[in-house]
Amino acid sequence: MSRFLDEKYASLDAYVPGEQPQDKKYIKLNTNESPYPPPPSVAEAAAKAAASLQLYSDPECCELRRLLADELGVGAENIILSNGSDEALNFAFMAFSGGGVTFADVTYGFYRVFADLHRLQSHIIPLRADFTLSPDDYVDKGSLIVIANPNAPTGLVISLDDVEYIVKSNPRAVVLIDEAYIDFGGDSALPLIKKYDNLLVVRTFSKSRSLAGARLGYAIAQAGLIEDLNKIKYSTNPYNVNSMTLAAGYAAIKEKEYYTRANKDIIAVREMTAKRLRDSGFEVLPSNANFIFTKYPGFDGKMLYTSFKEAGILVRHFPGPRTSDFIRVSIGRKEEMDTFINTAVSIVKK
Amino acid sequence: MSRFLDEKYASLDAYVPGEQPQDKKYIKLNTNESPYPPPPSVAEAAAKAAASLQLYSDPECCELRRLLADELGVGAENIILSNGSDEALNFAFMAFSGGGVTFADVTYGFYRVFADLHRLQSHIIPLRADFTLSPDDYVDKGSLIVIANPNAPTGLVISLDDVEYIVKSNPRAVVLIDEAYIDFGGDSALPLIKKYDNLLVVRTFSKSRSLAGARLGYAIAQAGLIEDLNKIKYSTNPYNVNSMTLAAGYAAIKEKEYYTRANKDIIAVREMTAKRLRDSGFEVLPSNANFIFTKYPGFDGKMLYTSFKEAGILVRHFPGPRTSDFIRVSIGRKEEMDTFINTAVSIVKK
Repeated sequence: MSRFLDEKYASLDAYVPGEQPQDKKYIKLNTNESPYPPPPSVAEAAAKAAASLQLYSDPECCELRRLLADELGVGAENIILSNGSDEALNFAFMAFSGGGVTFADVTYGFYRVFADLHRLQSHIIPLRADFTLSPDDYVDKGSLIVIANPNAPTGLVISLDDVEYIVKSNPRAVVLIDEAYIDFGGDSALPLIKKYDNLLVVRTFSKSRSLAGARLGYAIAQAGLIEDLNKIKYSTNPYNVNSMTLAAGYAAIKEKEYYTRANKDIIAVREMTAKRLRDSGFEVLPSNANFIFTKYPGFDGKMLYTSFKEAGILVRHFPGPRTSDFIRVSIGRKEEMDTFINTAVSIVKK
Repeated sequence: MSRFLDEKYASLDAYVPGEQPQDKKYIKLNTNESPYPPPPSVAEAAAKAAASLQLYSDPECCELRRLLADELGVGAENIILSNGSDEALNFAFMAFSGGGVTFADVTYGFYRVFADLHRLQSHIIPLRADFTLSPDDYVDKGSLIVIANPNAPTGLVISLDDVEYIVKSNPRAVVLIDEAYIDFGGDSALPLIKKYDNLLVVRTFSKSRSLAGARLGYAIAQAGLIEDLNKIKYSTNPYNVNSMTLAAGYAAIKEKEYYTRANKDIIAVREMTAKRLRDSGFEVLPSNANFIFTKYPGFDGKMLYTSFKEAGILVRHFPGPRTSDFIRVSIGRKEEMDTFINTAVSIVKK
């Protein structure tokens, strides 16, 4: 750091995204990207938008918000679009954390970073030994509650009843449900939006819509919370979503059939992968996401990660007392996962 | 606001972007967009990138940073790319404002918003009566100093000598020169980067590269300051620039000739517009940007704004004691400015 950096950031430990090595071609199973590109209509829409980039993008994102609202059965005033869902999360961490923030010990690593960045009081609640979440740990916390459902990197879900129990028992605070992976399993909290003014659902086009590179996320809630998030947005970056991404997102929503099929394939390949790994002695957490969290008795996760990398396969390892035995493996195409499984077996049999 | 918004944001007054009315077709001279679209190669590059949007964009933006660094004669480690230059400004306001922030009373309105958002101590320094900046007002402030050069909405510049005087006389703090409009006039502070570790230059592809809708900005400084800004970026939104915008920016840099010609045209039309307005009795500040700041004796700026809007021309009016007489008019195509001038004359002759 330079001598000019505000000292309050001196000990800030930034988020480390999954590696993107340039040195050789890997089977890339480390950042939960979809193995399927977006359909051609998405690129066509983006190209059309690119022809008039001299004009600012619509800061209100009217057209895309309206289409998405119709798709989700909510009003346009219930949605804010963001430059990836990380931006929506950041806005929410800023807006609703007057009483601090509560999240699990094993969850999306960025929550800890946002909390540190904004110097929030963090209540970190350990998941149970089997990585499931105990709803009773989240009753009336008086702080922003953030829960990824399905959770990352475990892939585990909590039930809609449990989500409602938590939302209901925290009338003084916002409960944020991060549904980045919801299209791959679990029940969305969306139907609860109309009932609870303290529920905020955050989602992304990155995974189940194959648009990680476009950066498009959104939050859904009653109009009051969305207004608050807009206040932060208009004080940060009013034109936060670019014109090409708005067009790409619009085209993607129109391609329902393509994505339904792609996501079904991913789920089927996930189940096949989990079964074959279990058959070979791996422990695999029951996943509802587009990745699995797995370990092998007697093997260290870092060691597994390194062996896979040497074999040309990138997976993700999370250091830390509860996760270091595991690796997180994104679900790729069937052929990629065949290679992964064969490699996995040969690594542990050595 | 909802009852959940952190009360520290209760009085926050967000930025209001220029209006984008959907009701009818206007000659749009209100948001300093370029009247020229990007060349076709930009849309082609974006479309190509859109075909593999399932993959995350490169968080380090390696290729574009390298090309831009070569273009500017600095190293890749001297550049950070951002989702529009507003994001780079926001990061800088976060990172370097331990001692508060100093800026002019009449300048880019977002500085006030960033200062309020981050609850910074603001030192607001009045420009002279003729809207020029007095460098002696900016000596050893012990706070982040932010100067738009050319300034908005005035279009006035300060000399490179004055910039160096300010940078040199503030060894304890970062001096941020916002060069959003530098390609339309004035001397860039870029040559001073190598000499001063406290100088940060912020720029954008929005205006002189016709990429407002793509959201691409950047900051240039010695590696220490860039590292600090990266720390904030990686704690906020690591994949802050999407793949299509990275590709569009890359293609744009390769089209030097196209943009040189376009920007020359804009400057020529600006000078023609200013001359003809002055000939008709308007006062026009000497502009070095792609807009002019003008008033007519005895007319209120809001009144002018309304008359132009009724005539189908959007300009921008800034309320406030020192700016309310004026309107800011972006420079459009020759034909658009002919219409603007004719309308202007007929408004004031009525």
